[in-house]
Amino acid sequence: MATFQKLTPRSEDYSKWYNELVVKADLAEQSAVRGCMVIKPYGYAIWETIQAELDRRFKEQGVHNAYFPLLIPKSFLSREAEHVEGFAKECAVVTHHRLMNDPEGKGVVVDPNAKLEEELIIRPTSETIIWSTYKNWISSYRDLPILCNQWCNVMRWEMRTRLFLRTAEFLWQEGHTAHATKEEAEDYARSMLDVYADFAENVMAIPVVRGVKSPNERFAGALNTYCIEAMMQDGKALQAGTSHFLGQNFAKSFDVQFLSKENKYEYVWATSWGVSTRLMGALIMTHSDDNGLVLPPALAPVQVVIVPIFKKSEDLARLMEHLSPLADRLKQMGIRVKVDTADNATPGYKFADYELKGVPVRLAMGGRDLENNTIEIARRDTLTKETISLEGIEDKIVALLAEIQKNCYQKALDYRIAKTRECNSYEEFKEEIKKGGFLLCHWDGTPETEEKIKAETKATIRCIPLEALPGYKEEPGQCMVTGKPSAKRVVFAIAY
Amino acid sequence: MATFQKLTPRSEDYSKWYNELVVKADLAEQSAVRGCMVIKPYGYAIWETIQAELDRRFKEQGVHNAYFPLLIPKSFLSREAEHVEGFAKECAVVTHHRLMNDPEGKGVVVDPNAKLEEELIIRPTSETIIWSTYKNWISSYRDLPILCNQWCNVMRWEMRTRLFLRTAEFLWQEGHTAHATKEEAEDYARSMLDVYADFAENVMAIPVVRGVKSPNERFAGALNTYCIEAMMQDGKALQAGTSHFLGQNFAKSFDVQFLSKENKYEYVWATSWGVSTRLMGALIMTHSDDNGLVLPPALAPVQVVIVPIFKKSEDLARLMEHLSPLADRLKQMGIRVKVDTADNATPGYKFADYELKGVPVRLAMGGRDLENNTIEIARRDTLTKETISLEGIEDKIVALLAEIQKNCYQKALDYRIAKTRECNSYEEFKEEIKKGGFLLCHWDGTPETEEKIKAETKATIRCIPLEALPGYKEEPGQCMVTGKPSAKRVVFAIAY
Repeated sequence: MATFQKLTPRSEDYSKWYNELVVKADLAEQSAVRGCMVIKPYGYAIWETIQAELDRRFKEQGVHNAYFPLLIPKSFLSREAEHVEGFAKECAVVTHHRLMNDPEGKGVVVDPNAKLEEELIIRPTSETIIWSTYKNWISSYRDLPILCNQWCNVMRWEMRTRLFLRTAEFLWQEGHTAHATKEEAEDYARSMLDVYADFAENVMAIPVVRGVKSPNERFAGALNTYCIEAMMQDGKALQAGTSHFLGQNFAKSFDVQFLSKENKYEYVWATSWGVSTRLMGALIMTHSDDNGLVLPPALAPVQVVIVPIFKKSEDLARLMEHLSPLADRLKQMGIRVKVDTADNATPGYKFADYELKGVPVRLAMGGRDLENNTIEIARRDTLTKETISLEGIEDKIVALLAEIQKNCYQKALDYRIAKTRECNSYEEFKEEIKKGGFLLCHWDGTPETEEKIKAETKATIRCIPLEALPGYKEEPGQCMVTGKPSAKRVVFAIAY
Repeated sequence: MATFQKLTPRSEDYSKWYNELVVKADLAEQSAVRGCMVIKPYGYAIWETIQAELDRRFKEQGVHNAYFPLLIPKSFLSREAEHVEGFAKECAVVTHHRLMNDPEGKGVVVDPNAKLEEELIIRPTSETIIWSTYKNWISSYRDLPILCNQWCNVMRWEMRTRLFLRTAEFLWQEGHTAHATKEEAEDYARSMLDVYADFAENVMAIPVVRGVKSPNERFAGALNTYCIEAMMQDGKALQAGTSHFLGQNFAKSFDVQFLSKENKYEYVWATSWGVSTRLMGALIMTHSDDNGLVLPPALAPVQVVIVPIFKKSEDLARLMEHLSPLADRLKQMGIRVKVDTADNATPGYKFADYELKGVPVRLAMGGRDLENNTIEIARRDTLTKETISLEGIEDKIVALLAEIQKNCYQKALDYRIAKTRECNSYEEFKEEIKKGGFLLCHWDGTPETEEKIKAETKATIRCIPLEALPGYKEEPGQCMVTGKPSAKRVVFAIAY
C-alpha cells in the first residue's frame, strides 16, 4: 500500500508548499504547453461551485450571459490608446489558418500560403470586441442598460507562471455593461464590487478590503477601478476581483452613441468586472495548512466523507447497515457526501488523503463504535475529533458545517487584523514591509511617490479603502514620504 | 412605434428563413471576426439550459468536468496518423507571442523577435492534449476508468460558415474516457450515445436515429463512431451528436500504458464524445415556422409570457392585481415567467415578438377579461388560442406546457416518418434523393460504392441504424448500386 508523502511545511518554504499542494491535492498541473495549466477534476469541481454561486448572484443583478469571439482583430487593440498600452503586448498572435504536410515528410508545417490578411489576437480581455458588437445593439436609450457577462478562457503571455495565480491561459468571467448615464454606470461598477465582496466573504470565507485602485494600478482604459484585496497566510496581498468604471472611453473608440430621452446623441457609459481562476489560489493560500487543503464547506466538492474501519467484508457489511442510511439522509439534506469503502488503502492513508483534499468533516466508524452506537467525527479546520452518539448526528453535522464555514472566515480575519498596522514614517515602513501584511499609511496621492515606494520596497498601494478597516478611523494626515497632505490612509502591501 | 417585419417564408427560401430567424430572434449574429459568431443573451440562455440538462446526465454517468489547454503543440497533431489527416489542416495557428508599437506609428505590429519555437494550434478537438495528460494520470488498473468532460470553445477554420451550423469557433463539450478493457470502452461509447438520444428526444423534442457511421464518415482516429441523426424541416439530415470508440490509437500515440490486474502492461482503451452549439441549429430547424422560433418548453428561457392589455396606468394597476400573484404562483411552481408591462409597444407588436422568440405559452388579459374573471391563453406550437377562466389556471398551464413539449416531438417525428422511405434501385434513388428525407437502402458495405453515390447525388450514408426505424423491419438484401449482398438497409440523405 502507498505511504503518504508529506508536504513541505509552510514555515520552511511557503511557495514550495503552495506548488506541492496544488499538484498533490489534485487541483491542477502544468500542461505540455508552456504556461497553460490542466485543471483536474477535483480542482474543477471547486471552480464549478464558484461559478454557480457567482452566476446566481449576477443573475439577481439582472445580468445575462452571452458569448463573444475568442479572437480579436489586431487593429481593435490600438483603438483605445490607454488600453493597448496596458494589454496588447504579451499575447498569443494567430497569423495563419492552415497546416500542410511537410514536403520533407516530417509531420506537418505551417502553410505559407495561408497567411491571414490581418493577424488575430487571442483575447486577453474582451472590451474591444464587445464594444464593437454593442455598436450594433444600441441606438436608443430604450436599448440600455445592457448587462452581459461571459464565462470564458483568456490568454496573456506571462513569462513567469504559477498554477492558478499567473498562467498564460486562465478561465474567468467578464461582465460588460452599457448605461445611459455616468451615475448609473458608476453605481453599477460599485454594486458589482459588493457582489464580489459578499461572495468572497460568505462563500470563499475570505475577508476582503473593498477599495479603489490608485491611478498607477488602474485597469488599462478605466477611469476608476474598484477592487477587493485579500491577505494570504504569508502576509502578501492578493487582488481577488476588480470592477471598472470605464467612462465613455470604449464607446468613443468604437463610436457607440444612443439617442437620449431628450432626443440628443450621446456616448454610452461602460463598466467591466471580472474574477478568474486566480480565486483558486486565494482560496488555497487563505485557509490551508501543512496537512493540505482546508476548504470552507460552501465550496467543498465533498463536505462529509464517511470511512468505515474494517478488516473482513462481513465487518464492512455490518457497518454499512448504519452508514448507508446515514449517507442517504445526509444527501437528502443537500449535503455532498462520499462513503469510502475501498479495501486497497488503510484508514490512516485515507484520513491523510482526505485531509490533503480538505474535506471539512470526516466520519469514521469501527467495530467498537458499532457496539456503542457511536461514530468518530473529525473536523478538518481545527484537526480535532471526538466520538459521539449516532443519535441525531445529522443535525450536528449541519451545525458543524456552518461552524467550520464561520471559523474559516474568522481565522482568516483574525490573521489579517494581526498583520495590519499603521505606519507613520517611511523609515519605519521600509522595515515593517519586510514582515509582510497590510500597512496603513498616508500618501500624497501622486504617482511619483507611489513609484518611488515601489522601486525601493516592492510594495504597492493595494487600494484606497472605501471605509476604514475594522479598528481604525478615517483621518487626514501627512504623506509618510513627502510630508504633503493626505486625506486618509491607504493600504500598502507586497502583492501576488 | 416599430412595425413588425416578417420573415422570408420557409417555402420561398429555407436557407434565408433560417439566417433571418437566427438574427431576428436575437439568438446569434456574425462578429467582426470572419466565421466567428456572437451568441446573444437570448440564444445563450437556451444554450445554458442545454448545458445544464446534459451536464446533469453526464454526472449521473460518473463523469467529472475538467479543463485542458486551448493550445496544442503542432507536433502533437502528427502523432496519430489518421487524426492529422482528418483534422490538422484548416486551423488557427499561433506563431508569435508579442505585439509591439509600429515603428512607423501606425498602431501595433507583430514583434518579429517573439516567434515561437514550435507553433501552437487552437484546439480543433482535444484528444491529443488530453492523452498526453492522461499519460501522467494512469499507471495501474486502479487509476481506471477516467471519465472526464470539458465544456469549452474549439476552432476549425471553415471556409463557408453559417450561424450555429458551421462556424470557425464554436462551443461544445468533449468527453474523453480511458478504460482497462476494450469491452468497457465500447460499452461506454455506446451508452453515451443513449444519453445523447435521450436528451435530444426528451429535452430538445428532436426524434433521432441512433446508428454507427460508415468507415468514410468516421471520426479521424476512431475505430467506430456512433451517432444520432435528425431530420430538418427541409428534408436534410443533421448529425446531432457523436460518440467514438477510439480503440488504443491515442494510447499508443502517446504511450499510455497501465499495469493490469494480471500484472501486465497494456495500452489503455479510449472513447470520446461531443455535442456542440450546432444543436442550436438543429433545434431551430426542427420546430420553427414562418412566424419565428418554436421552442420546446424544456428549453425556453421564457416558458410563459403574461401581457396585460391596457391604455391607462389605472387599467394596468387593476390588471396587475390579478397578474402579479399569478406570475408569482407560476414562478413558485418552477415555471419561467415574464410579465411584460412595457408601454412602448402595442399588444399586437408584443404578440408577434413573442411568437418570433418562440415563447410556448402567452397569456393576455384586458378589461373585459377583468370583468369576466377570464384570460386569453395562446400556444405557440399550434398558434391556437382560447379564453378560459382564471380559476385553476396554474394546473392548466403545467399540463399545457407538457402537451406542447410532447406535440413538438410528435410533429417532428411525424414529419420524419413521412419523409422516410425505402428505395430499391439506384435509378429510383437518384430521383427520390432530390425530394429530400431519409432513404433506406441496401449498400454493399464498400467505401467505393459510398463514394460513387456521394459524387453522383451528394447523398451520404448518415448511419447504419442500430435498430430498424419505426415501421420497418431489419432484413438482408442486395446493394442498390452493385447488387452485392447487404445485411441491412442504411440511411442515406443529403446532410448539413
